[in-house]
Amino acid sequence: MLELYHGEPAANSLKSMLCLNEKGLDFVSHFLDLHEFEQHSPEYVKVNPNGQVPALVHDGAVITESTLINEYIEDVFPEPRLRPADPLARWQMRYWTKFVDEYFCPALSILGWQRMIKPMVEHLTEDEFEEKIQRIPLKEQQDKWRTAAKQAFPKEQLDDCQRKVETSIRKIEAALAENEWVAGPDYTLADVSCFAMMAGMPRFHHAILNEDLTPRCIAWHERMMARPAVEATYALGRNPAFRPAGKQAPD
Amino acid sequence: MLELYHGEPAANSLKSMLCLNEKGLDFVSHFLDLHEFEQHSPEYVKVNPNGQVPALVHDGAVITESTLINEYIEDVFPEPRLRPADPLARWQMRYWTKFVDEYFCPALSILGWQRMIKPMVEHLTEDEFEEKIQRIPLKEQQDKWRTAAKQAFPKEQLDDCQRKVETSIRKIEAALAENEWVAGPDYTLADVSCFAMMAGMPRFHHAILNEDLTPRCIAWHERMMARPAVEATYALGRNPAFRPAGKQAPD
Repeated sequence: MLELYHGEPAANSLKSMLCLNEKGLDFVSHFLDLHEFEQHSPEYVKVNPNGQVPALVHDGAVITESTLINEYIEDVFPEPRLRPADPLARWQMRYWTKFVDEYFCPALSILGWQRMIKPMVEHLTEDEFEEKIQRIPLKEQQDKWRTAAKQAFPKEQLDDCQRKVETSIRKIEAALAENEWVAGPDYTLADVSCFAMMAGMPRFHHAILNEDLTPRCIAWHERMMARPAVEATYALGRNPAFRPAGKQAPD
Repeated sequence: MLELYHGEPAANSLKSMLCLNEKGLDFVSHFLDLHEFEQHSPEYVKVNPNGQVPALVHDGAVITESTLINEYIEDVFPEPRLRPADPLARWQMRYWTKFVDEYFCPALSILGWQRMIKPMVEHLTEDEFEEKIQRIPLKEQQDKWRTAAKQAFPKEQLDDCQRKVETSIRKIEAALAENEWVAGPDYTLADVSCFAMMAGMPRFHHAILNEDLTPRCIAWHERMMARPAVEATYALGRNPAFRPAGKQAPD
């Protein structure tokens, strides 16, 4: 029995939702409304004490960290293969999933928090907000929420994040000049990780991700959007705004 | 043919040196003197364009990122096993290697840079220093060198790093209350990753890693020091100061 706790199909939640769907696995989808802070609820903190999504529960065992969830899924359900058999190609794939986790995602995440959290919490009184913050298990996350609620990330940090996101996109564009998929000739977990970050970027970061500047990224994004597993993943969301506009899967 | 480019047996260099030695693999050791900035030399940047160690060269292919080097070694040379066969135990191992890479290592690294870089560069004139900095391929690394040379990391950042290092040690101490090794009953790449960080800590961070506060970490450190592969790893260094004092391998 497989269960996935996840938010809207975006970022790290999207990463593991897409992997499960690419494998064609049946799983129970537990949707948590991050706008209602459901990931910090006492019920969910029993599942993942860090209060973060996604979390996979497989026959009662809790597996966290989206990149490691995907490696686990690959270990248990190797077909269809999303991790190359050749060790060098496999290293190449992991190079990308690690790059996403340590460079691209943290930078993109700060820009997203700066944009999204304040509108999400400004209807709360200070006491209501503080009550929600106190439930967050990780100190780092509490700090990030407090800063984001005031849109108070320092300009220097935001500029640095913007530079890292642009560097990430240029790097992926260069990789796609070499191969059809990010880590080589085959579709792998590297594409899953990159798409988890880039899915919404043609809308929110159009200035750096568009047909003129990054034609290969845009074409790859369209190939991703045409995958049935991507369609199945968006079907598990609640808010249609999370589904990128653009070309649909061919009939 | 295997070649490893590495610095002294410490941190990320130690991580991959130890993995190769645990496997009993023959490899050519290319020692780079980080105190002489050899990792930024034009010759080495041809091997690893990021100018960072370690880098493994296997039959001409360059493999970087110490955690991924170790996964690659495991993929190509599976015996003796350092990655559990059971998927859940394997996830547990990866949880720790990821924790080291994303939380423990970055925090410990800043504290080490604050302590070590200034004495290492203060004999240089400003022009000599700037010439060395200009050779560093990554902007992030250039910034870190400039800040470290002046011991100018903000106090708030240093306090945060200290807190994270202490949290890391407490987490490992708790894991060692459950099992003999960090990720479970077997010695794995999780122990290799944690030792790469903790090897020098009983000396440099004695206040938080000692027999009173963290007896299980100290006992584990001694078990690590008694491993022949650890001894073989220290034999590849140049500066004996990098070898932790303490109990030796039993005869």
